[in-house]
Amino acid sequence: MVMTTTTQMSPELEQLLEQLQLEQLDQDMFLGDPGKGEGRLFGGMVLAQSVVAAYWTVEDRTIHSFHAYFLRPGSHETPIRFLVQRIRDGRTFTTRDVIAYQSGEAIFQVSLSFTMPEEGVDDHQEPMPGHISPPEDCRPWQFPGMDRATEKERERWHRKRPITVLDAAPGYNLRDGETPERHVWLRMRGPLPEDEVVHAAMIAYASDTGLLSTARGVIAPGRRTSASLDHSVWFHHPPRFDDWLLYTSRSPVSHAARALIYGELFRRDGIRAASVVQEGLIRAPKGKPQG
Amino acid sequence: MVMTTTTQMSPELEQLLEQLQLEQLDQDMFLGDPGKGEGRLFGGMVLAQSVVAAYWTVEDRTIHSFHAYFLRPGSHETPIRFLVQRIRDGRTFTTRDVIAYQSGEAIFQVSLSFTMPEEGVDDHQEPMPGHISPPEDCRPWQFPGMDRATEKERERWHRKRPITVLDAAPGYNLRDGETPERHVWLRMRGPLPEDEVVHAAMIAYASDTGLLSTARGVIAPGRRTSASLDHSVWFHHPPRFDDWLLYTSRSPVSHAARALIYGELFRRDGIRAASVVQEGLIRAPKGKPQG
Repeated sequence: MVMTTTTQMSPELEQLLEQLQLEQLDQDMFLGDPGKGEGRLFGGMVLAQSVVAAYWTVEDRTIHSFHAYFLRPGSHETPIRFLVQRIRDGRTFTTRDVIAYQSGEAIFQVSLSFTMPEEGVDDHQEPMPGHISPPEDCRPWQFPGMDRATEKERERWHRKRPITVLDAAPGYNLRDGETPERHVWLRMRGPLPEDEVVHAAMIAYASDTGLLSTARGVIAPGRRTSASLDHSVWFHHPPRFDDWLLYTSRSPVSHAARALIYGELFRRDGIRAASVVQEGLIRAPKGKPQG
Repeated sequence: MVMTTTTQMSPELEQLLEQLQLEQLDQDMFLGDPGKGEGRLFGGMVLAQSVVAAYWTVEDRTIHSFHAYFLRPGSHETPIRFLVQRIRDGRTFTTRDVIAYQSGEAIFQVSLSFTMPEEGVDDHQEPMPGHISPPEDCRPWQFPGMDRATEKERERWHRKRPITVLDAAPGYNLRDGETPERHVWLRMRGPLPEDEVVHAAMIAYASDTGLLSTARGVIAPGRRTSASLDHSVWFHHPPRFDDWLLYTSRSPVSHAARALIYGELFRRDGIRAASVVQEGLIRAPKGKPQG
């Protein structure tokens, strides 16, 4: 088991940070490098690049939420064009829409909202779940189905990611009829630059990690094809991803091949940094995962 | 206490049903009547009209989710123009964006997704909360602050709504430190036509009822100004609003004047019909509620 410390930068994180440096084609149009890889693009990567594109058209405001739809599978073969639409530049709130295109087709869309910090009233927050172990005591997380993988395949899965993913509730077993849930620790495999755009983009990237697996047959795992349909994040605090974040999630409902998953990102000190909701398509393998 | 049965139609519901009959200006452009009223437009009404506008551009598909941002306060003085953008017409999924304009300014935007029914795998659902009374035993719901209202003001609040709203957990008192929650029964004040577009629009309308009050100082209520920032709904089943729907909600987090509220709509037989998430701005009265 290899644990990367935050003082070294993994080549995977280095590549991702480079991919976040979009090329500006026009005031509100950007070009993104899809990076090398096999199969369809990771949705979190397109999301992260879209967050950067929108942020670069906004001044002196901090992201507080976004709502995305995944429209078509993205490809590693073609650059991605990001078109930003300025929906509102209000006194307190700024709104942007971003559509990501490949080969003339929209593959992804997201609406984002930015605001300024202000004092709250009636502040409250649910605490972190209780049955969590500190990251120092946790082992690499295993995706459902990874128990059939060899030790080498598992290591490779973790090695090729820019994020370390640990099982935060080792030994926790779901009982029949309970709400499917999953808890992991996440940390970037290296230090991030002092840039809130990058921090926001990395949280967006990380928030698309493994949510669908929370909803898949946990009691009686079977082969499934799955695809994210939408993805929403609310940042309760200005985005920071310096240390471990606890990513809790549960799926309160799944019906008609669509599962809803709620996620929460907590800092180590118990502060709820962000909330996430994703709907995903989960089918038996003969079905096609996306239309 | 007057309980309307579903065989009579209230004038308020009749007016709302008329407002859902948009005028078609062009293939993807519609005009909506904002209706009579005081102050800013009810967000749920603009949402309901947007759902109709999008639905009318889609064939043989059923709505399964939407994500909306409230951009500027709407007015009763000017008709609303709805511009529909056809984002995707895929094999399984259809996506539409709608922007609502008044006097040349975008007041509201929503992205909506439609699909076809299919068989699910790994279906699951959390049950209805336990401490709910049947609607026959429940009294009209009181918004926080309504305890200072006269009996006449309270009656008027309920009378001018096209929906009956009952307190579904009478006698339930939140204790300090608990997650703020609220449970109401909702029913349209009359029968709806056999049209899934209308049912979807009415659920959208109703889902914007009172969520912000769930997050406002429940233990120590004070004067607040509030405004919805965004609103998302996931329909787990094709939309139907024939009978009572239980609307449960809780606010797991509020910080920096922004509160997040999760809602669930249950049918009387316990089926979770839809899920809702809203973020709202909650300020002490000297602040302005919207930018």
